[in-house]
Amino acid sequence: MRLYDGGRSPNPRRVRIFFAEKGIALPELIPVDIAKKEHLTPEFTRINPMRRLPVLELDDGTALAETIAICRYLESLHPEPALFGRDAKEQGQIEMWNRRVELGLFSSVMAVFRHSHPSMVELEHQVPEWADANRELIDDHLLLLDLQLAANPFLCGELMTVADITAGIAVDFMRPSRIPLPEDFANIRRWHGELAARPSWAA
Amino acid sequence: MRLYDGGRSPNPRRVRIFFAEKGIALPELIPVDIAKKEHLTPEFTRINPMRRLPVLELDDGTALAETIAICRYLESLHPEPALFGRDAKEQGQIEMWNRRVELGLFSSVMAVFRHSHPSMVELEHQVPEWADANRELIDDHLLLLDLQLAANPFLCGELMTVADITAGIAVDFMRPSRIPLPEDFANIRRWHGELAARPSWAA
Repeated sequence: MRLYDGGRSPNPRRVRIFFAEKGIALPELIPVDIAKKEHLTPEFTRINPMRRLPVLELDDGTALAETIAICRYLESLHPEPALFGRDAKEQGQIEMWNRRVELGLFSSVMAVFRHSHPSMVELEHQVPEWADANRELIDDHLLLLDLQLAANPFLCGELMTVADITAGIAVDFMRPSRIPLPEDFANIRRWHGELAARPSWAA
Repeated sequence: MRLYDGGRSPNPRRVRIFFAEKGIALPELIPVDIAKKEHLTPEFTRINPMRRLPVLELDDGTALAETIAICRYLESLHPEPALFGRDAKEQGQIEMWNRRVELGLFSSVMAVFRHSHPSMVELEHQVPEWADANRELIDDHLLLLDLQLAANPFLCGELMTVADITAGIAVDFMRPSRIPLPEDFANIRRWHGELAARPSWAA
């Protein structure tokens, strides 16, 4: 296996943290420099026509793109610890929370970054109105998380899951997106501090 | 089980088609009328704070929201026929294609509808610039599908999967979104005609 990696970008980080939480050694990393537009070359477009990172190349040459697809592949090969749930109900609830976060906070933070950050001018057809509309939604997304974390150590209960990785990376990425985390979300602050202290978070 | 249903909307259709492809009888349906804003009531917000449909209520009262979370729950209880893949590699590839379609065509068609259709004025804070930006992406999304379907009967090979349901519903929803399907995407037309002829598609 080889992992086409994108450094500090959110999705490459999600996959590397997933490897670490599973206790699986990272495969050979092939760095792709997004700032240098290396993901837009014809060579990389043949590997992933969506021109996104990361991509896991399997030993038979199959290119597996999309963060959660890579994580699911790893979960299937290495079921323990289960980060997508152990039974039907857990699997449904973890998928629900991962998607609520992806379609909510994660998506809005990314939209703010892509459509308003100066570093993205050359990489994205920026729609400033879309950045503004998403910035207005952030507090609602955070409130949903905070309420869930008031009643649970992690988003889906006692155990860390893939939904926490998605949500934690979204909170991390608020800083480069220039979105402050309001002081009053105490449950998010508690939970995010615990995530950031895990060895996996440095991956 | 009970299914809070949203009629002809895309996500409720995806779940009902999934039930039909699995050969599972639909549970009791509780219709929620989006046009009448019944999904915005305090009662429904308690069931799903995201105020989206459908929601599967389990016998223990657990409310499972998000289309793919409901489908995964059903897949776990009823593994055959496998609509999310039979082994690690298939599971990864189906997740990849389902996400490529969701983040690509499905998301852009929904954005055009939500942000430009007159019927959505009262339900959505419309950003017309976002509808325009997404309309410009549709042909690229369709080209990706068409190329994949040139080489495969279904998106992930010989068997229909959840990725075909997502993609087929996205193509269906182009019509109410007033997006024409160009004549030259012959592979999409062949595949979509076959999907629409399946008994499940009327679900």
